[in-house]
Amino acid sequence: MASGKGVLLKADPIAGTFQEEIKTGVSALPHKLKLVGILATSSAPSRYYADFTRKQCEALGIEFELKETGAAANPSLAEGEGVEQTIIESNEDDNVHGIMVYFPIFGVQQDHYLQQVVSPFKDVEGLHFKFHYNLYHNIRFLRPKTLLTTIGVPSSTEAPMDTESPPEGTVKSIIPCTPLAVVKCLEYTGIYNRLLPYGDRAYGKTITVINRSEVVGRPLAALLSNDGARVLSVDIGSIQEYTKRPKAADSAAQRYNPRHVVHNSQMTLEECLAVSDVVVSAVPSANYKVKTEWLKDGCVCINVAADKNFEKDVRDKASLYIPAVGKITIIMLLRNL
Amino acid sequence: MASGKGVLLKADPIAGTFQEEIKTGVSALPHKLKLVGILATSSAPSRYYADFTRKQCEALGIEFELKETGAAANPSLAEGEGVEQTIIESNEDDNVHGIMVYFPIFGVQQDHYLQQVVSPFKDVEGLHFKFHYNLYHNIRFLRPKTLLTTIGVPSSTEAPMDTESPPEGTVKSIIPCTPLAVVKCLEYTGIYNRLLPYGDRAYGKTITVINRSEVVGRPLAALLSNDGARVLSVDIGSIQEYTKRPKAADSAAQRYNPRHVVHNSQMTLEECLAVSDVVVSAVPSANYKVKTEWLKDGCVCINVAADKNFEKDVRDKASLYIPAVGKITIIMLLRNL
Repeated sequence: MASGKGVLLKADPIAGTFQEEIKTGVSALPHKLKLVGILATSSAPSRYYADFTRKQCEALGIEFELKETGAAANPSLAEGEGVEQTIIESNEDDNVHGIMVYFPIFGVQQDHYLQQVVSPFKDVEGLHFKFHYNLYHNIRFLRPKTLLTTIGVPSSTEAPMDTESPPEGTVKSIIPCTPLAVVKCLEYTGIYNRLLPYGDRAYGKTITVINRSEVVGRPLAALLSNDGARVLSVDIGSIQEYTKRPKAADSAAQRYNPRHVVHNSQMTLEECLAVSDVVVSAVPSANYKVKTEWLKDGCVCINVAADKNFEKDVRDKASLYIPAVGKITIIMLLRNL
Repeated sequence: MASGKGVLLKADPIAGTFQEEIKTGVSALPHKLKLVGILATSSAPSRYYADFTRKQCEALGIEFELKETGAAANPSLAEGEGVEQTIIESNEDDNVHGIMVYFPIFGVQQDHYLQQVVSPFKDVEGLHFKFHYNLYHNIRFLRPKTLLTTIGVPSSTEAPMDTESPPEGTVKSIIPCTPLAVVKCLEYTGIYNRLLPYGDRAYGKTITVINRSEVVGRPLAALLSNDGARVLSVDIGSIQEYTKRPKAADSAAQRYNPRHVVHNSQMTLEECLAVSDVVVSAVPSANYKVKTEWLKDGCVCINVAADKNFEKDVRDKASLYIPAVGKITIIMLLRNL
């Protein structure tokens, strides 16, 4: 590019492509949809996010109720106090169609427990174990009643995956919102190629994902590699390579959906970045920065973290830079209602 | 005490009280019980624990098969590689009655995911979400079919709790092994008073639990306070107090089982230890030590961590000191088969 500067891509136009679809869908329903937000901490970013959810809901014609408990309701109460009971009450309330809990509350372990308490029928964020299980096993559609069972038996006959629309009697399995928002960015930017068959649209692309948490990094790496990409998953302690299991790799694998396999990688981060068409970073630290000089010319960089994980001059190398995906995440979430 | 020295209590005699019960039960069965251990890492303590499991199984007449995958099977493979598929195969194998996975493998988040993949019908460790949910809600018995559903609706009519033996059609809900091992220590040492009604046998006791993980500290604190104890739960960031919800506290709570409530505590660790009849420590660090001088005279100290969390002179204050509970844990686990 003449200027040597890549394009700065804000989340609004990408989110915008879904807004009309949701508005139309919502207004066609016989009843109003209701989302409950549960705020249990004194965290300022969580309250900001709750306010933002309300604004988005109002713009789309969705009813939003914020339930405050614990330190959010009364500073003398503990952080998180009463949150589990509030979730259970919302699970049992037939007028509530979706539940969003503002994490983090207690830390990853206890928060993970709470994510399982939210009914999978009302889990708009896609944080329930069942959805992660389906994602990791590349099970894209599900019969709603299977959401009720704890045990997931992968079966390719029950869950065909080479079609974009759910077969009769099934619905799309919910994909965790933030990883899905990244995929929507990659569709918008053309990294996902619509000329390729559904389920393989990232074929030929190498993508580095920095972070391997169960909320963002690992589901994202699985999702992208299930769609055909070669994914280099970078965490503090190790680098792994996620690639799709070939359909006819071995007969024992035949009963499972073709899905990602994971191996250790001997590559360094510098080597990963040098070959990556896309770099996604989701490191929850203000100090972490991806080195611009290591990036491949013309790559696409997506910052998922709340802090900026890319250096200021990232667009000297990147052809496209998406600094934040939060607005897309919330639209994905409302789409799950 | 004249010597000023408390009694050192090894785990063997406590574990021993259950060995005969299990042996007799196992030999009365028409088929042999089979436990599968899944070792997926190169961790030496995990392999040691697997060998120990085998020995214990053989002594009790239980068949044990160790399935090795990932780095445990072949050093060129990644830590944990193939573990999820090995779990699924064992879930589906009707000849397998129990599954034990040697954690840690990937870290708390991904390990927590794997714990949900193990069928709750074969989860001898009690790590499945359902068992934690029941424990936190003080649901002591369950109808086996409810294990199949993802959503747990607490209902005191379905799960009476003032009796020691399961009502018809129900079985005991599995309690995570390590917390249960601690309760067995407290029963053995008389801290749990059998003269008190079942479900309230720790009433009147103050217990400090140092650690609040989802595997040990939090379920243990909930378990002890559900049994009537006042529990001071100490974690790096905060101190909380767990107490039992009174049966008739408020009408809204009536539909739930009487169970623990959690509040922030303003006490310091020193103040907690000064009033505690029992101190349980489970801090995974060789450097962490509970100060003997802070302990209450005649208290009971239980070390759950792999490292020694108490100072050498702990028995100058403690009347009883149990340095390790691992042998009891494994017996609890085999009892769950």
